[in-house]
Parts: sequence; structure tokens; C-alpha cells
Amino acid sequence: MDEKVMLGHGSGGSMMKRIIDEVFFEAYAGDELLAGNDAAVLSIPEGSRLSFSTDSFVVTPHFFPGGDIGRLAVCGTVNDVATSGAKPLYLSCGFILEEGYPIADLKRICASMAEVAKEAGVRIVTGDTKVVNRGHGDGVFINTSGVGVLTPGVNLGGQYCQPGDKVLVSGTLGDHGITIMSQREALSFFADIESDAAPLNHLIANVLEAAPDVRCFRDPTRGGLASTLNELASQANVDITVDEERVPVKDAVRGACEMLGYDVFQVANEGKMVCVVPADQADAALAAMRASTYGQDAAIIGEVSASTEGRGNKVYLRTAFGSTRVLDMLVGEQLPRIC
Amino acid sequence: MDEKVMLGHGSGGSMMKRIIDEVFFEAYAGDELLAGNDAAVLSIPEGSRLSFSTDSFVVTPHFFPGGDIGRLAVCGTVNDVATSGAKPLYLSCGFILEEGYPIADLKRICASMAEVAKEAGVRIVTGDTKVVNRGHGDGVFINTSGVGVLTPGVNLGGQYCQPGDKVLVSGTLGDHGITIMSQREALSFFADIESDAAPLNHLIANVLEAAPDVRCFRDPTRGGLASTLNELASQANVDITVDEERVPVKDAVRGACEMLGYDVFQVANEGKMVCVVPADQADAALAAMRASTYGQDAAIIGEVSASTEGRGNKVYLRTAFGSTRVLDMLVGEQLPRIC
Repeated sequence: MDEKVMLGHGSGGSMMKRIIDEVFFEAYAGDELLAGNDAAVLSIPEGSRLSFSTDSFVVTPHFFPGGDIGRLAVCGTVNDVATSGAKPLYLSCGFILEEGYPIADLKRICASMAEVAKEAGVRIVTGDTKVVNRGHGDGVFINTSGVGVLTPGVNLGGQYCQPGDKVLVSGTLGDHGITIMSQREALSFFADIESDAAPLNHLIANVLEAAPDVRCFRDPTRGGLASTLNELASQANVDITVDEERVPVKDAVRGACEMLGYDVFQVANEGKMVCVVPADQADAALAAMRASTYGQDAAIIGEVSASTEGRGNKVYLRTAFGSTRVLDMLVGEQLPRIC
Repeated sequence: MDEKVMLGHGSGGSMMKRIIDEVFFEAYAGDELLAGNDAAVLSIPEGSRLSFSTDSFVVTPHFFPGGDIGRLAVCGTVNDVATSGAKPLYLSCGFILEEGYPIADLKRICASMAEVAKEAGVRIVTGDTKVVNRGHGDGVFINTSGVGVLTPGVNLGGQYCQPGDKVLVSGTLGDHGITIMSQREALSFFADIESDAAPLNHLIANVLEAAPDVRCFRDPTRGGLASTLNELASQANVDITVDEERVPVKDAVRGACEMLGYDVFQVANEGKMVCVVPADQADAALAAMRASTYGQDAAIIGEVSASTEGRGNKVYLRTAFGSTRVLDMLVGEQLPRIC
């Protein structure tokens, strides 16, 4: 086996066949991939609608406590597809490799993808490999796209949030962003923080069963909770108010944010879900989250209200001191290449 | 509007919202994109199976005679989905942009994507934007993934090729690869060659209607016709013999290949389709190709035969001089980053 990625691995010829056989098929071959055609042919249940989403992953470093770029790539798209209420079934996977990247690292990434895909219950059914010259990429970029199926009657979306609804988050904020930052800057005193990267499709299914009138799910990745809530407020033409004291944040993450000047509400998460539900189903949704593998720290953190006339759709934070401030969408860039 | 891509355009915050609104939505907004949720919810006809494919595009230069990276990105995935016999419906689009890339170039790429998506009858329904630091990418990389629907009874694939079948190609070979190479090396005497990048889903639909027992379609992109035919021979455990004189090649492309030492059978195409059909439907398939927008130069170029015992699955070229040579799969890399 080759030790490094070479331009020929992206050639369409016999070297590409070799990397496909020895790396990708070895990690996650299924019938569709092994068939060797240009597109995968897939069955779906009668009467389904599709949910379709895509994400590219450019995180650096590629390996970090709690995960790696491969785990992120599978979880990110699984979670995006699942936010619609769909059951994610199939993933595509496109690699853009840089000449010289160690094949051993690529194998480790693929093994991680296979493992978390299995946990999520999705299959990688089609793929693509490109190689760029040394100095024109950054080791490995991954695109995953995902297809899921939606049962009739499930219609979720930010536009459905209504005054009176409750806002839930499935766990602690900021773990992923602070982990990446501490790795990048080699801040070893944050050694006990790790990324939350996780597939949340089972958690979402559990919540939907317990609270069938959920308005929407949204994963607060880049831009953090602040950007996610601002998007929802804008989509639904409402205000949202969050109680700072009710938002779960690990002490180490809170400490890191204070020391480094980050707003934890703008830090990226990769294994958390925001959920808006009618008030009378909030407790049921919370219980379903807490009973799920990745939802033990879930909390009801705020509520939706009618938009204040003439002031746009605002997100407010009621602070621990009793004051209220506007929680703005992230402007510019806080932590580049977080996912 | 910003003039250059900045890291903040990939932040998940308000700058990202701006580039999405002003560049991507401006070019190809539809209901699903405008809904602003993390996944697009899509209808498909009852009883359909799905066809799903993905491709990343890293071609350089980004603009070339006959197309650009955006046109390639749409055509490549449309064609891959269509090879299964499916009707391509929906595309995802993931951009990996390098800090400093001109927004004007990005707009030009998106306009090109929108134009060819319209021609192909597909819609870009979900997307993602990442930005990498200057020096860690190469201006723009694009991933497109595509979903199509397959009507019952259509089952195509390389494994179905049988001895006696005829092999067709929809037009001249090598145009795309030689165009890119001549642009990259600034060889101005090839000024009259242009890329063949084109959506072939309508051509495929026409051929399927005229020759319903088509075994498979395959687009001879990276690795060229030689790699495609070797893949088919291997999938179906057959030999394939091609008549060199029947393979359409433009004089300028032939001249360029001779001068530069390329084998035109290994040069990439981005708007050509290989089709294997039972002999009694070959003429009907050929007529359907020739009647299609991108198939005027189509030809029957060879036939499938039983694999010669003990010699593996070979592809042979009967040369203009009457001799026969083995047409091997591309080894290593001929023209890196051709698509």
C-alpha cells in the first residue's frame, strides 16, 4: 500500500482504484459502493418525501479530543438531515486530498466515519476522490451530503415558531469550539474539554415521538446558539428570550471563554440540538432529550414572544444579574475552520 | 458588497448570511433554499427509487473555453446521476473558498451553474459555504451531490454488459482534457479547442426511449475512454474491442495529443457518454444520440466479447494499421486537476 497520497490517486485510473479499494472500501464498503457504478440506486419507503442536505468539512486540526474530521463529517450531515424530522438513510462522501497526506491518517478518518455512520444507522453509498497538488489544499477536506426520508405529516421549520413556545437545548454549549481552539493554540490547561461531535438523529426521533408538535430543530454549529436563535427569530418574525442561568455550560468551557474573551453563545457546537416546542409539550420534550444518549444535560432555556413592534426580530439574554441584553448574531469570524 | 472572500464569510454569522443572500441566492434561489432550514424537504413521484451521486471539482484554471468550474460541477453530477437511467432532479452545492478569492469570479461561477442547471432541468436545493485561510485552498473547490428518480424496471449498470453488445460514444474524445492542458500551459495554437462540458441527461433519456434494453451508460471523465471501458470489462467479466478508426476525435485534439505525447483514449471528457447496448438496438441508440443536442458526432465504436480464458478482462484497440493492442487503464496521473 502507498504511504502518502499522490496525484495519481485522483486520476480516475488504476491508482485511484487502489486507494478506493484499500482505503474507502476497506472502511465502509456496502453493496452500492461495491457495484462500481457512477451513481447509487437506492430504495425508499413508499410515499416518503426526501430530506437532503450537504456540508463540507475543513476543520483543523484533523484529530482532536472527542473526535476527528471524519466523525464531524458524518455527524454534521446526519444532524442537518435529521433537523427536518427525517430519518437519515444515505450519505455521499467526497474527499479533496492534498498530495503528500499520510494514508494512515486517511484510514483513521475513514474508520471513524464508518463507526459513527453505524451508530447513526446511515450508510455511505457513493463517493468521490480528488487530489490537489501540494500547497493547494490542507491535507483533507471532506464533503458529505445526506438523504433521509420524511413520514407524511411531519413539517418542521424555523418559520413555525410561535409566541409562547419554549426553547430547549440538548446539552452544554461551546464544547466543540473551545476544544478546537485549545488544540490549535496548544493550551494544555483545557485538557479535560472534548468535542461534543455526535449523531443526534436518535435523540430527535425520541423528542418527536414525545412531543409531536415540535416546531423545529436546529443544530447550533458555526455561529453558535446566538446565530441559530437569530435565524429562527427572523424566519418566524418573533422575539426569543433566553435565561443565561438556565443555559448549560461546563465550568471549564466557561472559564476558557472568560479567559480568552469568547462569548459562549457564539461558539460552535457539533453535538447539540436546539428545539422549539409548544409550551405544553416542553416537559415531555425535555424528558425525551434527557433519556437519550447525548441529551443528559438538556434544559429549557427560553421562550418565544411576539416581535416588539418596529424593532425587528430580536434575541434577548436575561443575564444572571437580572439585566437583559440583545444577543446578536456573530459578526465576522471568531474561530475560523471550526468544522 | 464585499469584493473578496473573507474568513467571516464562512463563520455561520451575519457575514455568511450576506454572501449567501448576495451571491448564492441571487444566482439560484428557489423555495427550498429560501426557506432557510438546514435540510431541503423534497417531493418525489410515488414508487420511485433514488439515484444518488457526488463529485468534487478542483479544476484549474477556473474559467476555460467552453465552460468553467461551475458548469463542470453541475454537468458532472447531473451526468453521474443520469447514467443510472434516472431523471436528475435536485442538486446540493458545497463551496470551499479560499480567503481573498474575488467575489466577482464567484458570482460568475454561480451564474454559470444556474444557467446549466436550468438547461438540465435540475434545481440547487441545499448548500454550504466554507472558507479556508489564504494559502490553504486554491480559490474555489465545489462539491455537488445529486438526487434523481428512477422509474420501475430501469436497471442499468456495467455488470450487465454481454458478449455481442455494441459500444457507442456520444461524440468526440479528448476535448475537455486538451482544452484544460492548453490553457494551463498557455499553448495558444490550440485556440480553437474548447471543453465539451455539457449536461447529458436529455440525451440519455432519448437513448433509453429508443433502445430500452441499454445495458449501461458511463461518462468517460478522468482516465478517459480507456479507464471507463476497463471498468466495464471488469464489472461484467468480458472483453471489449474498439476500432480506432471509428472513434471520433477532432483533428486539433489529435494533433495536440501527438505533439504532447498524450493518449487520447486516456484524456478526460466532460460532455460525452459511453453506452453499451444489445446489437439489435445499436442503430436506434445511435440515431437517438445523433438527434440529441450534444450527440451529433456519436458513433458505434466497438463490441463486447466473451473474456479470453485466463487473460483477465481486457480492452483491445484495433488500430488503423490493422494491428491490435491492449488499451490499458490509466496508470498514475496524466493531467492533474482536470475536473
